[in-house]
Amino acid sequence: MQNPSTTPRIGILGGGQLGRMLLQAAANYPVETFVLENDPECPAVHLCHRFTKGDIKNFDDVYAFGKTLDALTIEIENVNVEALEKLETEGVKIYPKPSVLKTIKNKIFQKEYYKVNEIPSPDYIITQNLTELKQAGDFLPAVHKLGEGGYDGRGVQILKTAEDISKGFDAPSVLEKMVTIYKEVAQMVAINEKGETALYPPVEMLVDPQLNQLDYQLCPAEIDEKILWKVEAIALSVVRNFKSPGIFAIELFIDKKGDVWVNETAPRVHNSGHHTIEAHYSSQFDMLWRIMLGYPLGNTDAILPSMMVNITGAEGFSGDVKYEGLEEALKIENAFVHLYGKKQTKPGRKMGHVTILSKEKQDLLHQSNKVKRTLLAKS
Amino acid sequence: MQNPSTTPRIGILGGGQLGRMLLQAAANYPVETFVLENDPECPAVHLCHRFTKGDIKNFDDVYAFGKTLDALTIEIENVNVEALEKLETEGVKIYPKPSVLKTIKNKIFQKEYYKVNEIPSPDYIITQNLTELKQAGDFLPAVHKLGEGGYDGRGVQILKTAEDISKGFDAPSVLEKMVTIYKEVAQMVAINEKGETALYPPVEMLVDPQLNQLDYQLCPAEIDEKILWKVEAIALSVVRNFKSPGIFAIELFIDKKGDVWVNETAPRVHNSGHHTIEAHYSSQFDMLWRIMLGYPLGNTDAILPSMMVNITGAEGFSGDVKYEGLEEALKIENAFVHLYGKKQTKPGRKMGHVTILSKEKQDLLHQSNKVKRTLLAKS
Repeated sequence: MQNPSTTPRIGILGGGQLGRMLLQAAANYPVETFVLENDPECPAVHLCHRFTKGDIKNFDDVYAFGKTLDALTIEIENVNVEALEKLETEGVKIYPKPSVLKTIKNKIFQKEYYKVNEIPSPDYIITQNLTELKQAGDFLPAVHKLGEGGYDGRGVQILKTAEDISKGFDAPSVLEKMVTIYKEVAQMVAINEKGETALYPPVEMLVDPQLNQLDYQLCPAEIDEKILWKVEAIALSVVRNFKSPGIFAIELFIDKKGDVWVNETAPRVHNSGHHTIEAHYSSQFDMLWRIMLGYPLGNTDAILPSMMVNITGAEGFSGDVKYEGLEEALKIENAFVHLYGKKQTKPGRKMGHVTILSKEKQDLLHQSNKVKRTLLAKS
Repeated sequence: MQNPSTTPRIGILGGGQLGRMLLQAAANYPVETFVLENDPECPAVHLCHRFTKGDIKNFDDVYAFGKTLDALTIEIENVNVEALEKLETEGVKIYPKPSVLKTIKNKIFQKEYYKVNEIPSPDYIITQNLTELKQAGDFLPAVHKLGEGGYDGRGVQILKTAEDISKGFDAPSVLEKMVTIYKEVAQMVAINEKGETALYPPVEMLVDPQLNQLDYQLCPAEIDEKILWKVEAIALSVVRNFKSPGIFAIELFIDKKGDVWVNETAPRVHNSGHHTIEAHYSSQFDMLWRIMLGYPLGNTDAILPSMMVNITGAEGFSGDVKYEGLEEALKIENAFVHLYGKKQTKPGRKMGHVTILSKEKQDLLHQSNKVKRTLLAKS
């Protein structure tokens, strides 16, 4: 910290829902908070001590924002890494380190990182453009992932047959062999400056195939102990090789043989950790503050099993959001509703989430279905 | 609501820790938040959409603050009630109603309210000044409570013998017969616009006799079922007679005969409800937003039993706060630390609280003792 005797000054690049929930958690601790974001109506704008309007992808904006702070974190990988590298050399702590962001924000580098570190991840080739992609017909069925700039399902195309190839990206991309997925899980790992780690129980995800966004997420994942050990070991290996403090969400596939494959890593608080706010002793947001403030790592244990439902903008509605069924959802006795305060909805946009707590899986499923059916973001 | 089609605009009079925690909870819902408070470094200043510097006791400040809002609530009773009455006639919803504040902020009116509504509360007489107090020697041992302006133990004096009378107040006050207390409990009650109520399990309190502030607070209180029924019935009677939506903390004494007496009522979120943030499905803060936003009442059930420890400024230290033992407290696996971001400490000032969750009372006690011994607000 640059000013050890005073309240730490910590900034967040991005002011969306992850920033919003980080700032809700920050108010438990003595810390001065800063947000850099272009949209002055963003979900996090009013919850920080100081908001700066600016472009998180712009060198000058990020550098000017960060140079008076003790530490910085991110809400999204797509930030100006060069500015963060300069800030790091000047003594500002960055969570995660810029070197990690460089690796992760480019899916080609990310895949190479897994390969170099002997982390199991689906086979892939690199395609520089559509012409190269067209020559890769033998590699299908596969998933085409744009090297830079994808987010929340954008920049990802499933290519099943040669006819799908025209849907691919005409830019440097990863073409990844399709894995026959038995289960998809996410493992959150926290790691502090000393290299101490804490693992949350993995969550099991169900993905909407069109938007590549979560429908439900169950915690803990229903997997055998031996698979759990593989998941944990692989996730720890992903994180430890980065040599960076922070919080990491590792998305993994489990195939029918029980093999475990890393799909992607996010070096930040993540959608797959939202349930930890109510269902775990230390939430992912609490945990990141603990890491950045130099506090001991928190307890990742579950208080109760949980299920999380994303509330995304309903199909066919764009404009000022109106919630339908909110009253019904708020009547569910073991449900925690989070709406992110976004004024505008559009199909698939993450507008909120609901976490259900229960010892009984049937109850989790029943209530999650109820939420999914009734609470709709329309316009 | 004045603007039913847009995001509700709701203000809080006061920007202390209660406001801070209200605003942490508000970020789960679509609501625009406003705070009126004189201190621009107060705990809540950075967590609202708009902060107004002003005096909550001043008519013009409160009226100007409230007149563009849909609803208002309070953090402390000591606000300008006349301005709230005018705002109420103009259609601004006030939680609780100004009529309730008038009754409660004056301890003489509060005692009369209990008497008129046949709510058991210790016998009392009214003393207008020290001369009258001196003539009331026969009434001792008793508690002398200043009619207006007391808060957090200020404005309360225990008068055991005639020699203590000089410590009494030379202003209109209540002189209340001392009850031999077996247990002291607090019952939180939520009531919405429709008159529907929800009761939290009562908490059992241990009070520091010098500061009249909590040391520990156990939830649920260890009381017989029949006493529980009395506590609930009496608390409901206190709340229902007010004919006002809001959230209420009723502090009660239980004597050795099992009789239950109302000590005081706070018509707002309250120190005795802090544990509900982590230990209950709907926290007291969540509940008040539900009431003000017209949502269904929340679930008051406990997720787990809990104990709450107030972190107050250590004796002998005043000035810029430095926390001692914070790392030790943050290592406790089932503890939730809340520090309110106050820059200055002084003896007895509420600086934060810690909530412990556990099924085992021994564990609750053990960890609470550990917190109390190690986490100190010094300077």
